[in-house]
Amino acid sequence: MAARLSEPQPLLALVEALRRLPGVGERTASRMAYHLLQHDLQGAQHLGRALSEAVSRLRHCDQCNSFTEATLCGTCQHPERDSSLLCIVETPADQNSIEATHGYSGLYYVLMGRLAPLEGMGPAELDFDRALARATNGFVKEVILATSFTAEGETTAHYLSEALRSKGLKVTRLARGVPAGSELEYVDAGTVAWALMERKPT
Amino acid sequence: MAARLSEPQPLLALVEALRRLPGVGERTASRMAYHLLQHDLQGAQHLGRALSEAVSRLRHCDQCNSFTEATLCGTCQHPERDSSLLCIVETPADQNSIEATHGYSGLYYVLMGRLAPLEGMGPAELDFDRALARATNGFVKEVILATSFTAEGETTAHYLSEALRSKGLKVTRLARGVPAGSELEYVDAGTVAWALMERKPT
Repeated sequence: MAARLSEPQPLLALVEALRRLPGVGERTASRMAYHLLQHDLQGAQHLGRALSEAVSRLRHCDQCNSFTEATLCGTCQHPERDSSLLCIVETPADQNSIEATHGYSGLYYVLMGRLAPLEGMGPAELDFDRALARATNGFVKEVILATSFTAEGETTAHYLSEALRSKGLKVTRLARGVPAGSELEYVDAGTVAWALMERKPT
Repeated sequence: MAARLSEPQPLLALVEALRRLPGVGERTASRMAYHLLQHDLQGAQHLGRALSEAVSRLRHCDQCNSFTEATLCGTCQHPERDSSLLCIVETPADQNSIEATHGYSGLYYVLMGRLAPLEGMGPAELDFDRALARATNGFVKEVILATSFTAEGETTAHYLSEALRSKGLKVTRLARGVPAGSELEYVDAGTVAWALMERKPT
């Protein structure tokens, strides 16, 4: 019996292509393909167009390395941004998190990753030289390291911190502590330990 | 501060398009978009092409309603398939599950959905008339209802069963019972109840 032989080639190719999305395995990819083809042909065409548009039109901002259509992104071009403050983040999603606070008016540099030697992501792959050149352009007075508080994010922050301080820049890191709105009882011990160590006078 | 205003339009369009995939929310869509643009540009182009290929080349099989490139799918065209047996399934994925048993040599009809009145899927939307016409073509002797054992799948099976039996066809349903390899202790009570009711002489 010709089991899966009967699946038409364009369907197999679509499932294979969908599997390259992060977190999508074979079963999910099949479900997505069937859904698009059966219930949302327009959505499939739409996604196809959006992909080729994004690939052809997006580039990295010359200054902050985030995605943009122009040479410089909207944030870097904004006249009211404080160019003496530079916040280094791992991804554009992290940048959005900081923007969502409405409490930061400086500029950004987006690493587009974090040090992960086991995955072959070293300082060269992340182009740390470019990040350092951006921070030492003469305008920046303080660099805020806003990489994640994971082992890899901490390593990245440590590495950048050493390099930036050797150039005479003020380097700070986001505060560690108990999350807003949380009850101590339910906060993990590591976080409470940090909050204790970095306690502040009121 | 121009918060998310700074995200370039092709990126927003791509995130919006990815959200149309089943089970993908805004955060996942963003993560997928960043991943494709940063780490897998080739994958993005590949997916874009696969989508337009699939949309333009795939159609429904004239006989079984599954996806195919030709008028008739490979299974329907297969000379050794038993045309007196017709298995009705909800989706091509369900058809694959049956094929994977290597224990069925008949033909299929794929409903491409199941009765779900609350979602506006009635007998007309599923084109039950076409399914009935397929089953009453004169060659089919037995129709095996292999819809899911959910409330909606059961309703679909019940509806089809009534209609098919009134045309004088033999109608059967997949057996309900304890899954192969499972210990009774861990099987839910509903399944054990069915297995008891439908117990068989050994």
